[in-house]
Amino acid sequence: MSTPDQAGAAGSVGHVETQRVVLFTQDGPLMLQSGETLGPVEVAYETYGTLNDDASNAVFICHALTGDAHAAGHHGDATRPGWWDTLIGPGKPVDTDRVFVICANLLGGCQGTTGPSSIDPATGTPYGLRFPIFTISDLVTVHRALLRHLGVQRLMAAIGGSVGGMQVLQWALDHPEDLHAGVMVCATGRLSAQNIAFSAVAREAILRDPDFGGGDYYDSPRRPDMGLSLARMIAHITYLSEESMRHKFGRRIQDADEPRHNFGVDFQVESYLQYQGESFLKRFDANSYLYLTRVMDYFDPFADPVAAVERLKHVRTRFLVLSFDTDWRFDTAHSREVVRTLQASRVPVTFREIESPWGHDSFLLMVPEYHRTVAAFLSRMEQEAVNGARHAPTPGEDDAA
Amino acid sequence: MSTPDQAGAAGSVGHVETQRVVLFTQDGPLMLQSGETLGPVEVAYETYGTLNDDASNAVFICHALTGDAHAAGHHGDATRPGWWDTLIGPGKPVDTDRVFVICANLLGGCQGTTGPSSIDPATGTPYGLRFPIFTISDLVTVHRALLRHLGVQRLMAAIGGSVGGMQVLQWALDHPEDLHAGVMVCATGRLSAQNIAFSAVAREAILRDPDFGGGDYYDSPRRPDMGLSLARMIAHITYLSEESMRHKFGRRIQDADEPRHNFGVDFQVESYLQYQGESFLKRFDANSYLYLTRVMDYFDPFADPVAAVERLKHVRTRFLVLSFDTDWRFDTAHSREVVRTLQASRVPVTFREIESPWGHDSFLLMVPEYHRTVAAFLSRMEQEAVNGARHAPTPGEDDAA
Repeated sequence: MSTPDQAGAAGSVGHVETQRVVLFTQDGPLMLQSGETLGPVEVAYETYGTLNDDASNAVFICHALTGDAHAAGHHGDATRPGWWDTLIGPGKPVDTDRVFVICANLLGGCQGTTGPSSIDPATGTPYGLRFPIFTISDLVTVHRALLRHLGVQRLMAAIGGSVGGMQVLQWALDHPEDLHAGVMVCATGRLSAQNIAFSAVAREAILRDPDFGGGDYYDSPRRPDMGLSLARMIAHITYLSEESMRHKFGRRIQDADEPRHNFGVDFQVESYLQYQGESFLKRFDANSYLYLTRVMDYFDPFADPVAAVERLKHVRTRFLVLSFDTDWRFDTAHSREVVRTLQASRVPVTFREIESPWGHDSFLLMVPEYHRTVAAFLSRMEQEAVNGARHAPTPGEDDAA
Repeated sequence: MSTPDQAGAAGSVGHVETQRVVLFTQDGPLMLQSGETLGPVEVAYETYGTLNDDASNAVFICHALTGDAHAAGHHGDATRPGWWDTLIGPGKPVDTDRVFVICANLLGGCQGTTGPSSIDPATGTPYGLRFPIFTISDLVTVHRALLRHLGVQRLMAAIGGSVGGMQVLQWALDHPEDLHAGVMVCATGRLSAQNIAFSAVAREAILRDPDFGGGDYYDSPRRPDMGLSLARMIAHITYLSEESMRHKFGRRIQDADEPRHNFGVDFQVESYLQYQGESFLKRFDANSYLYLTRVMDYFDPFADPVAAVERLKHVRTRFLVLSFDTDWRFDTAHSREVVRTLQASRVPVTFREIESPWGHDSFLLMVPEYHRTVAAFLSRMEQEAVNGARHAPTPGEDDAA
């Protein structure tokens, strides 16, 4: 497996296509945690690398809020790689020469998997806000159905950043037998009041947009673009550290030496936010934004400490938990809380706080220590999987928080 | 002067009325830094305490973004005191038994002083976005005109929190002879990219509101309430520390034991933000919000370091600079940068980082160490003013950063 020092030798998985499969039907629907059912459920996914003969080298990538199935390689234009192409590929930390990688668009999303913009068979029109509220457990249920479709019973690892990491944690709790290892990057075991506050304001921008129309805007000439772009702008501030914003933009003026002293775009940081807001409209659906942010708010798997201990008794998944020192969306305290809870139940955990100036966005970027740590952990997990190791490691094997 | 331990003995200035005075006319207009003129300019202000015979005990209060002239006492309902009533009153740190206090609504505001909602004599309709862009120096020019109207030539102190502190700094730079002392609480010498980003998104929410109508909404049945309340909600997140949000709200559900799992107000923090957004509409004007946030963005008095040194040569104002350890709107680094710049030019500065869990909002709250520090500093300044001291203190007198 490559180390970042050999990054020049690492390559791309090349041209890939997104696949689609119907995993649940109207007659055989998805049972949601709420008790509601949903069908059909189609899932968009991609795979990279080759599943080995005993199907022991599968790695599932859980994407973050606005990600999609296209994690690595490209769709025809090599200059526009998948969103985690820095991490996944031949010779990269998630080494597609050795492991079989699966990534799927989330339930409730808008990039190929059934979500609020899909047609509700009961009405023949898009669900909109009639789409059922779901949970992180429901996302995992859909991921598992995809695994069965692909002939995989157990994962060498599930890996995710941000809400992707929350899926990894929920997966280990709900189906401990599924995961040999789990990698949670800049994730959390529960959103703080401030986290919820940011998402709440972002959702208000969408809900109050006059073009939102109660969520039934799909056949309208106007969509809630104002609200969705504002939501994205608010969120983007939380994805960058103050330090990285200072480095990237400072107080520099856009395309001029002197400030214009007006209410238009004047500072470079304003131009950046405008661009982020506008470009988001091309690829994301406002209703999906509402659902996927709300599922994060309600995530709280350790809310009942007694029940948590009971569930964790059965968890033998080896965890790698990583945070970034300048991340203030989900700062290191969030990761430490997860680590402490897992350790209290003797779940094996390796924890690292990675130095990186780029804030929450670091998980998408080429941060050598981060990549090196993931590569080393997965290399160890690969050895264990080959050896069929199912026992918990002795305490000495883990570098605890 | 009282200390916080004697807080029980401190009182209220009681029933007060806001006064109004026309300080500039159409024929004798305000000259703005941009070269434009503005007239008439009316100013709403309040005073507390009594000006002494040699007019040496005047203290000017510079208010923050959404403050007003009503800093202390009450307007008839003692349960609804002015916004800085914790700090100002008989026996309080700004002791109205000893000093004469003046507070005025800012130029560009909407609580009695001329701003974008005022009638433009050229058109007979509200200015809206035709109101000229102004600077922090222009705010100071108006404050000075009010002092002359009140028979005050020189201030014992100017005091302000947040953008109020920015006015204090600009005042000392523009008119060093005016200020014996200046108190800057949780302020900054320049906004960071992240600071500007938050304000930019808040302004976008207003500018993109369909009811904004290019700023000419005053005669319309609908105002840009959606945008203004969103702006306030965004800003409010930055006024509280993550710690205080956790303490105040945590993940608690509003008026229920179990989450409702919907897109309405469910968490207490959502209810709080909704309330803050809605109640703001009753007292603030969207155009004033645009102007007063933009004036903050452009504030950068030390942008040219050579010119700054030249100006600071003439400044003998004694500064008290205070920050709060959990403030992330203008964190301690902002204050330290101001302190370092002042000290490099041998301007006398006392600096304290105050421990307080409440974030930026701390400056409005009863934080004993903060009040004690302001009280002690003003007591010293009062002594100096009585003694007519004009010399810079020896280095030993100041507790530097």
